[in-house]
Amino acid sequence: MPTVKMWSDADVAADSRVKAVFDDIRAVRGSDFVNNFWRALANQPALLERTWSAVKEVMVAPGGLDPLTKELVYIAVSIANSCPYCVHSHTAAARAKGLTEAQHAEFLAVVAMATQTNAIATGLQVPIDPEFVVGD
Amino acid sequence: MPTVKMWSDADVAADSRVKAVFDDIRAVRGSDFVNNFWRALANQPALLERTWSAVKEVMVAPGGLDPLTKELVYIAVSIANSCPYCVHSHTAAARAKGLTEAQHAEFLAVVAMATQTNAIATGLQVPIDPEFVVGD
Amino acid sequence: MPTVKMWSDADVAADSRVKAVFDDIRAVRGSDFVNNFWRALANQPALLERTWSAVKEVMVAPGGLDPLTKELVYIAVSIANSCPYCVHSHTAAARAKGLTEAQHAEFLAVVAMATQTNAIATGLQVPIDPEFVVGD
Amino acid sequence: MPTVKMWSDADVAADSRVKAVFDDIRAVRGSDFVNNFWRALANQPALLERTWSAVKEVMVAPGGLDPLTKELVYIAVSIANSCPYCVHSHTAAARAKGLTEAQHAEFLAVVAMATQTNAIATGLQVPIDPEFVVGD
Amino acid sequence: MPTVKMWSDADVAADSRVKAVFDDIRAVRGSDFVNNFWRALANQPALLERTWSAVKEVMVAPGGLDPLTKELVYIAVSIANSCPYCVHSHTAAARAKGLTEAQHAEFLAVVAMATQTNAIATGLQVPIDPEFVVGD
Amino acid sequence: MPTVKMWSDADVAADSRVKAVFDDIRAVRGSDFVNNFWRALANQPALLERTWSAVKEVMVAPGGLDPLTKELVYIAVSIANSCPYCVHSHTAAARAKGLTEAQHAEFLAVVAMATQTNAIATGLQVPIDPEFVVGD
Repeated sequence: MPTVKMWSDADVAADSRVKAVFDDIRAVRGSDFVNNFWRALANQPALLERTWSAVKEVMVAPGGLDPLTKELVYIAVSIANSCPYCVHSHTAAARAKGLTEAQHAEFLAVVAMATQTNAIATGLQVPIDPEFVVGD
Repeated sequence: MPTVKMWSDADVAADSRVKAVFDDIRAVRGSDFVNNFWRALANQPALLERTWSAVKEVMVAPGGLDPLTKELVYIAVSIANSCPYCVHSHTAAARAKGLTEAQHAEFLAVVAMATQTNAIATGLQVPIDPEFVVGD
Repeated sequence: MPTVKMWSDADVAADSRVKAVFDDIRAVRGSDFVNNFWRALANQPALLERTWSAVKEVMVAPGGLDPLTKELVYIAVSIANSCPYCVHSHTAAARAKGLTEAQHAEFLAVVAMATQTNAIATGLQVPIDPEFVVGD
Repeated sequence: MPTVKMWSDADVAADSRVKAVFDDIRAVRGSDFVNNFWRALANQPALLERTWSAVKEVMVAPGGLDPLTKELVYIAVSIANSCPYCVHSHTAAARAKGLTEAQHAEFLAVVAMATQTNAIATGLQVPIDPEFVVGD
Repeated sequence: MPTVKMWSDADVAADSRVKAVFDDIRAVRGSDFVNNFWRALANQPALLERTWSAVKEVMVAPGGLDPLTKELVYIAVSIANSCPYCVHSHTAAARAKGLTEAQHAEFLAVVAMATQTNAIATGLQVPIDPEFVVGD
Repeated sequence: MPTVKMWSDADVAADSRVKAVFDDIRAVRGSDFVNNFWRALANQPALLERTWSAVKEVMVAPGGLDPLTKELVYIAVSIANSCPYCVHSHTAAARAKGLTEAQHAEFLAVVAMATQTNAIATGLQVPIDPEFVVGD
């Protein structure tokens, strides 16, 4: 149940600014499917353009981290931020990029471990070891 | 400023249960340095043992995700949970496992992108696409 | 799917303490509609009274911030706390107080920017500039 | 205690890509002071450029929300995300844009109210009223 | 709508490793009902075993905190982390352990008070009193 | 490093509205020590009065939950919300109300367990069992 109108393909076709972004999403992904995130964000053309541009630069362009690692980092953040939509969309994306069931299980174990030790460190207010500090 | 006593090496040496864990940490890591997290957790021997045992199983044992990927997932969770100690200790660990400055920059860009789109998806309450659902 | 009973108007009418609060909500808002938040909170009369009293003082009474600004702050917190109910109820409230689609888009851009830079600042553990400190 | 090197003005001067951003920050703000956030982000030139560009577009460019409202939304998110640096830097920015002590007090009361009712709504798992739903 | 397959009793019966855990859950709880959390976690046998083992040690074994107090702490964390499933399952568990409606109301009031003062303390960046520090 | 002025006893003595609250804090607690939270909140007299009044009603007045349980719930929320000040002040308060080291260890184990299973439930998007639903 969204807080805004969800844009159908017909709505998109009628708005040239939004259509340009949707066309690019389809071209870059090589798929006609455009998920609901973009159909909701279509109400905010400037934010739509800036977000898709950044997604291309951060998630699509090749770099020093492989695409699956980037998806796992994305899901980890989405779990910690309790975003059901984001967990679903990026788990699907990670599977499309080759995530196996065994890797998914390992990933969840790391997330579970991290959240647990986060809570312990916060509860104990552990002082930062001088060995860890880089800048100053 | 911790909420509990920090255990010195002398404190550890005087408690055989805690000493056994610290000895294993040093052996597994091949280093004499034991960071403050464990020195705070030494006040809770059962939790200390269970946590270290799980860390060995999840973070140290070989599996389908490489060690650096696991550290990045760990840092991502720690950032989202706002845990300064955890960000510091696992950024140091990731560097020890080979994280380059360029990879760190890319990683931060992914975390920034994920938190941003988490907020947008939550603000718009985007409905989950049926295409993403696996189980039922 | 709530964790408690939702109070119907008949339930409310049968409990004078709850009825007094609901009557006041309707009088203050000038509307017969009472949303589900209050129908769930009716199970906790003391908390119901204290919460409604504080809402009146904080959100309804005139002050140095205009009502729409207060709603936007409310939604921002609700997004960051991942509360779907709260995002929905206060987005509706903001619209009732005049929020335009263009303002909603701008607001979401600010929230997206803030969450992103929050994550970056936490990931980098940026030290607080002395220039920012007021008290001591 | 940052996790990365903090860039001094001399470091900035020696890197033309970073220098261009810092020059623009100083020009846009009309002040020689560049706060630590940017000195830490200087390690990631692409993220630095993209972040500053988005900040200019979202926070500096005129729009349908006044600058002070945008700062308050920013602080609200930063409080909910527990980012000490962000709370400090944007409280200072809000004061520079005219926030009075009375408005700050009102703002904090709204944030306190929102977080409290967020927790209640989540604890009761209040179902979303059909009246609040816009899209579908 | 889960991100993984939900294991039916037939699925469980066909996997000896998962079946052993489910048998133990039923034996320890003295009930044939196994809730969805475990049916989802069955996809990750190692994490399933480790999690159930820890739940038994932490939540089931007798100790210095009574079982109802532990459930309330569990719900408090689940509310703060915005986990609808966890709020539901542990509110049900707390009721099964004797939580009264009056206690539930008091508990929610404490959670609401804590989240509110958390936000105020973060917004004001209150310095920690030297009187509170234990270790060093 | 607070974002507001910290009120000394001399500042408090000079403001009758703030002084009345501080006098009541000292009387109710039977102690001359007033911690920094109240010295920061003194800048917002209305919020100071409302917060102290609610603290007295929720945390001090006798009810169906014992005072130590209420402190543990408070700390649990404060850990999940990453509030260092709140963790410190309420851990100190819990100790003053009789929390033993063994209970503290058990409490931390419950918090660690809850955060971990919160993350797993969110990562798997576990559907809520119909058995858990109370209201409708």
